[in-house]
Amino acid sequence: MSTKPLHVGLVGYGFMGRTHSNAFAQVNHFFPLDYQPVLKAVCGRDAARTAAFAAQWGYESVESDWRRLVERRDIDLIDIASPNDTHAEIAIAAAQAGKMVLCEKPLGRNAAESVRMAAAVEQAGVPNMVWYNYRRVPAVMLAKQLIDQGRLGQIFHYRAKFLQDWTISRDLPQGGAALWRLDVSVAGSGVTGDLLAHCIDTAMWLNGSIDQVTAMTETFIKERKHNLTGKVEKVGIDDASAFLARFANGSLAIFEATRYARGHKALYTLEINGEHASIFWDLHDLHRLQYFDHRDEGPLRGWRSIHITDGDHPYMQHWWVPGLQIGYEHTFIHQVADFLEGLASGKAPGPSFRDGLATDHVTDAVLKSAQSGRWEPVARA
Amino acid sequence: MSTKPLHVGLVGYGFMGRTHSNAFAQVNHFFPLDYQPVLKAVCGRDAARTAAFAAQWGYESVESDWRRLVERRDIDLIDIASPNDTHAEIAIAAAQAGKMVLCEKPLGRNAAESVRMAAAVEQAGVPNMVWYNYRRVPAVMLAKQLIDQGRLGQIFHYRAKFLQDWTISRDLPQGGAALWRLDVSVAGSGVTGDLLAHCIDTAMWLNGSIDQVTAMTETFIKERKHNLTGKVEKVGIDDASAFLARFANGSLAIFEATRYARGHKALYTLEINGEHASIFWDLHDLHRLQYFDHRDEGPLRGWRSIHITDGDHPYMQHWWVPGLQIGYEHTFIHQVADFLEGLASGKAPGPSFRDGLATDHVTDAVLKSAQSGRWEPVARA
Amino acid sequence: MSTKPLHVGLVGYGFMGRTHSNAFAQVNHFFPLDYQPVLKAVCGRDAARTAAFAAQWGYESVESDWRRLVERRDIDLIDIASPNDTHAEIAIAAAQAGKMVLCEKPLGRNAAESVRMAAAVEQAGVPNMVWYNYRRVPAVMLAKQLIDQGRLGQIFHYRAKFLQDWTISRDLPQGGAALWRLDVSVAGSGVTGDLLAHCIDTAMWLNGSIDQVTAMTETFIKERKHNLTGKVEKVGIDDASAFLARFANGSLAIFEATRYARGHKALYTLEINGEHASIFWDLHDLHRLQYFDHRDEGPLRGWRSIHITDGDHPYMQHWWVPGLQIGYEHTFIHQVADFLEGLASGKAPGPSFRDGLATDHVTDAVLKSAQSGRWEPVARA
Amino acid sequence: MSTKPLHVGLVGYGFMGRTHSNAFAQVNHFFPLDYQPVLKAVCGRDAARTAAFAAQWGYESVESDWRRLVERRDIDLIDIASPNDTHAEIAIAAAQAGKMVLCEKPLGRNAAESVRMAAAVEQAGVPNMVWYNYRRVPAVMLAKQLIDQGRLGQIFHYRAKFLQDWTISRDLPQGGAALWRLDVSVAGSGVTGDLLAHCIDTAMWLNGSIDQVTAMTETFIKERKHNLTGKVEKVGIDDASAFLARFANGSLAIFEATRYARGHKALYTLEINGEHASIFWDLHDLHRLQYFDHRDEGPLRGWRSIHITDGDHPYMQHWWVPGLQIGYEHTFIHQVADFLEGLASGKAPGPSFRDGLATDHVTDAVLKSAQSGRWEPVARA
Repeated sequence: MSTKPLHVGLVGYGFMGRTHSNAFAQVNHFFPLDYQPVLKAVCGRDAARTAAFAAQWGYESVESDWRRLVERRDIDLIDIASPNDTHAEIAIAAAQAGKMVLCEKPLGRNAAESVRMAAAVEQAGVPNMVWYNYRRVPAVMLAKQLIDQGRLGQIFHYRAKFLQDWTISRDLPQGGAALWRLDVSVAGSGVTGDLLAHCIDTAMWLNGSIDQVTAMTETFIKERKHNLTGKVEKVGIDDASAFLARFANGSLAIFEATRYARGHKALYTLEINGEHASIFWDLHDLHRLQYFDHRDEGPLRGWRSIHITDGDHPYMQHWWVPGLQIGYEHTFIHQVADFLEGLASGKAPGPSFRDGLATDHVTDAVLKSAQSGRWEPVARA
Repeated sequence: MSTKPLHVGLVGYGFMGRTHSNAFAQVNHFFPLDYQPVLKAVCGRDAARTAAFAAQWGYESVESDWRRLVERRDIDLIDIASPNDTHAEIAIAAAQAGKMVLCEKPLGRNAAESVRMAAAVEQAGVPNMVWYNYRRVPAVMLAKQLIDQGRLGQIFHYRAKFLQDWTISRDLPQGGAALWRLDVSVAGSGVTGDLLAHCIDTAMWLNGSIDQVTAMTETFIKERKHNLTGKVEKVGIDDASAFLARFANGSLAIFEATRYARGHKALYTLEINGEHASIFWDLHDLHRLQYFDHRDEGPLRGWRSIHITDGDHPYMQHWWVPGLQIGYEHTFIHQVADFLEGLASGKAPGPSFRDGLATDHVTDAVLKSAQSGRWEPVARA
Repeated sequence: MSTKPLHVGLVGYGFMGRTHSNAFAQVNHFFPLDYQPVLKAVCGRDAARTAAFAAQWGYESVESDWRRLVERRDIDLIDIASPNDTHAEIAIAAAQAGKMVLCEKPLGRNAAESVRMAAAVEQAGVPNMVWYNYRRVPAVMLAKQLIDQGRLGQIFHYRAKFLQDWTISRDLPQGGAALWRLDVSVAGSGVTGDLLAHCIDTAMWLNGSIDQVTAMTETFIKERKHNLTGKVEKVGIDDASAFLARFANGSLAIFEATRYARGHKALYTLEINGEHASIFWDLHDLHRLQYFDHRDEGPLRGWRSIHITDGDHPYMQHWWVPGLQIGYEHTFIHQVADFLEGLASGKAPGPSFRDGLATDHVTDAVLKSAQSGRWEPVARA
Repeated sequence: MSTKPLHVGLVGYGFMGRTHSNAFAQVNHFFPLDYQPVLKAVCGRDAARTAAFAAQWGYESVESDWRRLVERRDIDLIDIASPNDTHAEIAIAAAQAGKMVLCEKPLGRNAAESVRMAAAVEQAGVPNMVWYNYRRVPAVMLAKQLIDQGRLGQIFHYRAKFLQDWTISRDLPQGGAALWRLDVSVAGSGVTGDLLAHCIDTAMWLNGSIDQVTAMTETFIKERKHNLTGKVEKVGIDDASAFLARFANGSLAIFEATRYARGHKALYTLEINGEHASIFWDLHDLHRLQYFDHRDEGPLRGWRSIHITDGDHPYMQHWWVPGLQIGYEHTFIHQVADFLEGLASGKAPGPSFRDGLATDHVTDAVLKSAQSGRWEPVARA
């Protein structure tokens, strides 16, 4: 087929560098598209690891300085998969260089950074997207369709949580390679920006804007050894964060995230209760959607466990046959597919940098309320 | 209210003596009925335990010989809750004395006994019933209604199993008080008569007659100490039993029971697959019915987990409010309620002794096939 | 047996009148106890319905004025199952008359009422208890034992919700017989006192005192026809209520209740995350406890679905055999059993009126915070 | 890295052609291996579709005659993903040409074909494997490890089923492109070879040889239009098949497969009950293993739902992070990884052609018993 190449330059070779690379490598195997990503270069600080990553995924070249990558003429798109403290600078430079920009979430470490990033891509007029991949879980996309069709009627309640348990040990250090998420100067915040940001992005996409929040946060373990300094240092991130919210549509919401919920590895769940129907979804069984419809015949009403593996489910016609489930990595493939379709059609799919900013306004309000002890209004993006 | 007393004489004070007594004691608290059971007498071999049981449940008198009980003029109904080897003799004598007869399942130790029992109650023209209580689980009754309404369309498959794990230890003796179920001379058979009989009764009630079966049985532990003789004796019962079957309606079936399925205490499950819809039920969550309807809109098809606690579910208007579940003992209360309504209306509810005989014809064929290694036809009751 | 009679006078013949009467009727059938409740009198406003209730449950007499009941010499215990606005007056009079007092939850319509009630029973020195029945679900009692044994280690998180959907229709009126729960003058509050009170009682029993809360409430349908006046009137109750909390032990909590969660009838769930282990329980499958223990061998760690039907589970040795579940009504039977054991042993089991007051202090703080928009401290009982 | 190329020639571009191609394309992205598959050629009858498939997956060349493919010097390995009636001829020719051979399951249409195939690869001494991919589900591999460690103790019961519902409509034709599975001359049999073969392969791998079986089969819809002839023709395949079995180790088994189980798309479940522990797995939630261990402390025994996504679970260290599930396609990737490791280490991983033959001996006995109505012995491979 006569697909057009799209030359990709990736920054970062960690966990997210892998999920993005896999998405670029796989998307044309399953989706009929006009564009085909070409892995031109990967950029990382550690030369050996960068080279190994490039070999493993077939990147044509390596860079050690992202500025060089951004300047390269043979790159169409900069994909940012490096730690949060690098997002703003790289994204802004890439936009100014006229590159398309994809950025891992959260967009910035705070809304102030994100305001500048959104402005940069919009000013440059370049396609942009934030990797809030959970929108592209087929079950979540089906939820979106059901809501947009009005099946739920008036929405009364939204509840989401994202529970993990991997930082309970006091012996876990903070900072450095795999542990930058515990270092507040790099991450910006703890679970609020890491986990709640996912919940908030999905929530506003499904249920509209959030008007105000009241929140609490906690750091259960106050000091941890820092990998870079070797010293025991104060932990600046929030280990747990929860907030009550009111949406613009009048519905009430509860959000919670923590890394101290023993027994849960990555339990992102969301539930929406409407006048006529309700929806529940759970990342630990991401291939299912739970659906209750009050319009079903009385004695036969029940929560339906829908196995989202049929050809008439979102994205699933591109995969296998009914009953055969896909997994986590496919959400990234779907996001790339939608992005490439958007390039062809001219209709940009979300979440854009502006959408990412909207989420950062909520996380900022959450962190502010956790300090003030009051309800805080959420700024609009 | 002007309820008519129904004078009950119970034989046996074991596990089933308790469930029956509770049903008699509770039924008028929850169901509006013309009749009210009055606990006149309980009969047992051990005088002290019989007296204690009578005191606990409010029986007015005790007997140590069931023949005396059967002869008493002040008794309307004989309820048999003693071990299997006593069923036939007591039931036949009670029928001949003109008493109504309720009998714990299985009806006889084999079809030969049951043939005589069914003949006796029919010849005497006395109301009779076998305590296959699981028909009266609200979820199972709802399944019956759905099938009778034709919701499933043509039935292709029936599968049932009843799994337990309480006899795995080699140290468990056989025979005597609580362990007569392991003594073949008392019980008649092992899991075939004890557990499969339940599955078969429900199956024929829901799906019609069984034409033929092929079976296998196994006794995993060949010898056990006998409580009555004190000696190690050959174990005569089947520890596990499974069979394939063809129903008269053309559907195929699989049945299995065992007391060697580690992790299952009383896991009776049944599933029916029809042209349009399927049903699944599980005794370990007896207050739920799983229902799948292919006529639901394509992308929203899923198994519905119906919480059977609403007023429009069978029997449930008599209990609490939606969401509040009932348990095992209620099935017996429902059976008594239906029996008493039958007395008032003149329409006898099943399962009758003849229904109980039909089940014993199947279990006989199963045990015969396990010996012959061939498909065996099932005699009709 | 030589059980001592305990003469009961019941006020109210509604839903709770039935659950309490059943508990008094059943408790001696299953629990070996020194005391035996005797149903002396039931008191209600509607003479015909009161008489019918008395007949159904075997109360020896009826009263139409609770003051008469309280004065009767042949009554040992007053059990209050009438609407919330009657609790305080009856309970205080009963205590002053030297009667034992059992009171349906919530204790008062607010803490001010409950303060007087707790003082009255303590001043009179009479046994007293509030019917927070969910403490006596065997699975919840097992959770209590596990926590008290230190199995969970430090507690990080507590989350509870109680979701219903029965008031979503705009056509549902407020006030009168079955609908007094929607009439704020009778009920005191909406879901805060009705549903959250249950969650709070269990939570403080399991996890200790709550220090402070921040809350939001909502009344989705602002006006409803009032059954007593026949007019459309403002709805004064909260339809939904949610709050964040901090426990004295440093753990964080989220609580939510609503009657607008489509698909949930009485979904009371609770989860506790500790350093070593976590617990989850759900009223819709009340016979199960979900338990995760991090100390299990790595690759075999998983949430255990424990079927709470064994003889070594709390209360279960008194019921049937492993695998056979009990239901909602049994929690009340257990509560009476514990109360009667407490009379014999002299050790009063909770929840006492003072425990009920502690819960009302929390619900008061919740309602206050929903007004103030601030964190509110919780008064100690 | 200095990986060695392994030149692959694929026959067939259907559903299985895709799963295999994906496995070859992905395996080196995730597994550190000495060998790297190179997609040299794909062979198919329809030139346009073959070319499109080659373009989509990056095959370097196309062939229209498998004989040409087998003769090519630049091909190391022939992978057979074409319909069953082509397996034997291609595999034997490939082996004789000295190629490694991978063959989609079932190995032959019957054991007679498979005997010749196994002989051919063994005589040629070429590496060979059958694509019974479900052995490589991480949860199933963990089950294998647990059994091999003796955790279950003596095995009493094995039960497996594979339920689908895609052929219920009478309007579905048989034969041709996607429907060759309904054409007995191409497929060899119906669900026995298609679905039960999977169950049998896993079962014998986990639990050893099967000694004898008794079976029943049914063809619910007797005639269907044939796509190739355009005429209504007799349906020769079995729509449903079930059998009882005795394993060499003394355990009892039940197997069932059907395409008439409404509500199930590809529900392959297996359960094993041992003296100490039991295991359950379900393809519809393939990333979970259910495990019950009787050696757990009494009141805390329960089925554990193990989310198989941790680094210490089989294969999972190569994927994402705990909590993030993989799907169906990954089983093929694992199989290729193991095959390539086997090439490097010299230890051939199963299932070999001889293992595939062992399964075909069982399916032959099943089909024979369904005719004879008797227990049939199973020939050993």
